[in-house]
Amino acid sequence: MADDQTRELLVELLRDFYRKDWVSGTGGGICGPSDDGHLLVAPTGVHKERVRPEDLFVVDVSDTSIRRRAADTALRPSECAHIFTLVARERGVRSIVHTHALGSVLAGDLAGDADHVVIERLEMLKGIRGLTNEDRHLVPVIDNTPREAQLVASVQRMLADPRFDAAFGVLVRDHGCYVWGTDMWEAKRHTEAYHYLFGAVVARAERGYRPPVVQPSTSVEEEERP
Amino acid sequence: MADDQTRELLVELLRDFYRKDWVSGTGGGICGPSDDGHLLVAPTGVHKERVRPEDLFVVDVSDTSIRRRAADTALRPSECAHIFTLVARERGVRSIVHTHALGSVLAGDLAGDADHVVIERLEMLKGIRGLTNEDRHLVPVIDNTPREAQLVASVQRMLADPRFDAAFGVLVRDHGCYVWGTDMWEAKRHTEAYHYLFGAVVARAERGYRPPVVQPSTSVEEEERP
Amino acid sequence: MADDQTRELLVELLRDFYRKDWVSGTGGGICGPSDDGHLLVAPTGVHKERVRPEDLFVVDVSDTSIRRRAADTALRPSECAHIFTLVARERGVRSIVHTHALGSVLAGDLAGDADHVVIERLEMLKGIRGLTNEDRHLVPVIDNTPREAQLVASVQRMLADPRFDAAFGVLVRDHGCYVWGTDMWEAKRHTEAYHYLFGAVVARAERGYRPPVVQPSTSVEEEERP
Amino acid sequence: MADDQTRELLVELLRDFYRKDWVSGTGGGICGPSDDGHLLVAPTGVHKERVRPEDLFVVDVSDTSIRRRAADTALRPSECAHIFTLVARERGVRSIVHTHALGSVLAGDLAGDADHVVIERLEMLKGIRGLTNEDRHLVPVIDNTPREAQLVASVQRMLADPRFDAAFGVLVRDHGCYVWGTDMWEAKRHTEAYHYLFGAVVARAERGYRPPVVQPSTSVEEEERP
Repeated sequence: MADDQTRELLVELLRDFYRKDWVSGTGGGICGPSDDGHLLVAPTGVHKERVRPEDLFVVDVSDTSIRRRAADTALRPSECAHIFTLVARERGVRSIVHTHALGSVLAGDLAGDADHVVIERLEMLKGIRGLTNEDRHLVPVIDNTPREAQLVASVQRMLADPRFDAAFGVLVRDHGCYVWGTDMWEAKRHTEAYHYLFGAVVARAERGYRPPVVQPSTSVEEEERP
Repeated sequence: MADDQTRELLVELLRDFYRKDWVSGTGGGICGPSDDGHLLVAPTGVHKERVRPEDLFVVDVSDTSIRRRAADTALRPSECAHIFTLVARERGVRSIVHTHALGSVLAGDLAGDADHVVIERLEMLKGIRGLTNEDRHLVPVIDNTPREAQLVASVQRMLADPRFDAAFGVLVRDHGCYVWGTDMWEAKRHTEAYHYLFGAVVARAERGYRPPVVQPSTSVEEEERP
Repeated sequence: MADDQTRELLVELLRDFYRKDWVSGTGGGICGPSDDGHLLVAPTGVHKERVRPEDLFVVDVSDTSIRRRAADTALRPSECAHIFTLVARERGVRSIVHTHALGSVLAGDLAGDADHVVIERLEMLKGIRGLTNEDRHLVPVIDNTPREAQLVASVQRMLADPRFDAAFGVLVRDHGCYVWGTDMWEAKRHTEAYHYLFGAVVARAERGYRPPVVQPSTSVEEEERP
Repeated sequence: MADDQTRELLVELLRDFYRKDWVSGTGGGICGPSDDGHLLVAPTGVHKERVRPEDLFVVDVSDTSIRRRAADTALRPSECAHIFTLVARERGVRSIVHTHALGSVLAGDLAGDADHVVIERLEMLKGIRGLTNEDRHLVPVIDNTPREAQLVASVQRMLADPRFDAAFGVLVRDHGCYVWGTDMWEAKRHTEAYHYLFGAVVARAERGYRPPVVQPSTSVEEEERP
C-alpha cells in the first residue's frame, strides 16, 4: 500500500473511531506503516475526525525523530508517538491505535489493584491473532502518568512480561488503551475486538454474569517456583 | 431478485449491521439466495462493512461446497457456511444472519444453565413470522464450540426440538446469535426484532421489570408424560 | 406544505427514527397532513427506513377509509391508522408518530400497575407544547392488546380523561408509544422530547436519582370530592 | 475566520451534536464569534440539526441586543443569548455551547445538594484548557429556573466563585450544561471532553468504581481560615 493510500485509510479510521466515541476531545491517535518502514503518525491537539492526509508525520521507528513533517508546519506529532515507536520496535508491528473509550476506562477500573484484566469465554477472543475462544486472555493494566511519554517505562515492562506475550493491547488506568497489529487492518480488527471485549467484561461484571476471575498479580517465576 | 441485486443488498446490510455494532472485528456474517437456488455467502476474515459484491461466494445448499468463487481467489467462504446450509436445508429458508451483538451474548448469559430464554409480553414478538404479542416465545441457547463448524450438531438438535418450532433464531452462549428468514427482507426483519427482544429481556432483567420466567430444560415428551 | 414535500419529510423522519432505534423490524409508523385535510399514512409490513414517498396512503380522518392508494397496489396502510385518525379527530392534530423505542417500553414498565407515569423536574418538559419545567406532567399508560386497532377504545378513554389533557402522547405497555403534534414539526419535537423524558425517568429510577412519584390511579372526581 | 465560515461551522456542529443526542426537541444552542467581535447565535424554537447559516443572529456582547437579524424575520434569537453574552463578557470567550445531554442531567443529579461535582483521575481532564490529569476539577452545579434568562444571576455568582476559576462549564440541575471556549474549536473540544467526563463520573458512581468525592460547599476563605 502506497503512503497516499495509507494516509487516506488512517484519516478514514479516525472518523470511524470518532463516530464510535472511541476518540474525542482531540484525544486518541493512530499510526500506520510508511513506505520506508517507519510510522505515519497523526498530529496532536487536532480534532481527530478532521485530520487530513497531509496532516500526518513520518516518524522514525528507532528514535521517534521526525523524518517528514506535516504540510502545516504549525503541527506537532502526537505525544503517543513515543509509545507507538516503542511498540513498533518491540513487537515488530506498524499500526497502533490509542483510544479514550469509556469502556476501556471502566475495564481498567474493574481490575482494581491488579495489573491485568482477564477475558475469557467469549467468541470475540478469536478476533485477536493467535487466540481461541477457550483461552483465558490477560490484558495488562498500567497506571496513568502525568505525561503520555512517561508511560514508556511501564509499557516496556509490560511488553517484557511473559504473562502478556499473547496481548496486542494494554489498558491505561483512568485513561484508555493502546492496541496494535502488524498492519492497519489487523490493528483495526484488534481495536474492534478489544473494545467489544472490554465492553463485555464490564457489562457482565455489573450484572454478575460470568465475571472474569481477577487474580493477584504474580510473576511467572513465582508461579513456577516449586 | 437477480444475483447482482442480492449481492448489493447483502453488502449494504453488512454495513448497516456494522453501524449497529452487531458485526465487528471481522466477525459475523450473512447469506442470501442465489439465482440457482443456493446461497450467496460472505467471505471469512474480511472487515464485514467493507465486503464488496464480488467478494461473495455461491455455496451449495446440499453439501456446502463452493459453486462459484469470489473474484479475489485469496478469499475463503465464512466458516458459518456450514450452519447456513444446515438451516437452509432444515427450515427451507435462504437468508441467515450471524451476529456477535453484545446484547445477544448477555441474553445467552441470562439463560444461566437453561437451554433457552423466554420472551413474552412484547409487541415486537409480532416482528417474528407467526407470532402474536400474547405468545410465550422460546429461543434456544446452545453452548459455544471451539470452531464454528462444530456448532452444526447442536444447531441440528435444536432445529429438531419441537419446543423451538416457532423460533427463527438461536443464541450461542458467549458468542452471539444466528437468525434466519425465507428471504433477505424477512431475515432483516427477524434480525432487528430479535436484537430488540434480546435487549429488552436483558434490560428488564437487570431492573427487575417483568422478568422472563426461565424454566428448567425439559423435553416435550417429559412434559406430556401423564 | 404541498403533499409532495410532506411525503418527502415523512420518509426522511422515518429514516431518522430508524437510526435512533425508535422504529425497527418494520414496526412503528408516522402520519402527516395531506393537502385535503386528511392523513398521509405509511404502509404496514415495510421496513420503515426504506419507505418511499409514493408508498404513502391518504387516509380519511373521519372513518379511516382509504382516499388514495399507494403506487404499489400490494401495500396496505399501517394498522396504526385507526389510532392515528382517532387522535387526529379528538385532538385536532395532523401528525402522529408511533415508535417501539425500548426506552418507552421501560417507562411503561416503570409505571407498574398505575395508569400513568409522572415526569417532573426536567427542562425538556418545555419541549412539549404548553408545559413549563415546573409542571408535574402525567403521561397515560394503557395496556397492550392483541391487535393494534383494538387499542382504539383505551386510547379514546385516555383522551377523555381530564388528568391527561396536557399530554401529547400515550405509552402502551410492552409495546411503545404514540406521540402527536399539530403538524409534523411539532410531532417531531414532541417525539424527541418524550423519548428523552422517558429515557430520563428510567435512568433516574434505576439509580435512585429524583425518582418520579407514581401515584395510584384516581379520577379527578375522587380527588375533588370534599 | 470570516462570518460565512463561522456560520457554516456552527450549523455543522449543531448537526453533530444532534447525532450525539446532546441537542434534541429544538433544545440546546451554540454561539461563535462574529467578525465584529460579537456573537453569532442560533435561533430559538428551531430543530437545531436543521438550522441554516442564514438563520443565525449577530448579538451584541455588551447588552444582548440584536445587531443583525436572521434572514427569516419570524425567527428570534435563542433565550440562551443572555447566558452566552454574560459568559463572553466575564470569561473573554466567544463560543458557548448549551446541551440537554442526559449524561449532564445525571451528573447534576449525582451532586445531590452540593453546588458542584468533582472530576478526578481521568486523562480526559487534559481536554480542558489548563488542566492536568492529576487535578481535582470542580464543575459548578446551579439550580434550574423557570426561564433560561433567569439563570443569569446564578451563572454570574458561579463565575465569580474562585473555586470554579478553572471550569469552562456549568451544570444546570434537571436541565443540562453550558460549556465554553475561546473559539469554536476550543468550545467543541471542551464540549466533547466535558460530556465524556460527565458520562464517566456517572458510570463510575453507579458501579462503585473510583467515585468522585463530593464535598460540602465551602468557600475558599473558610478553607484557608487557620
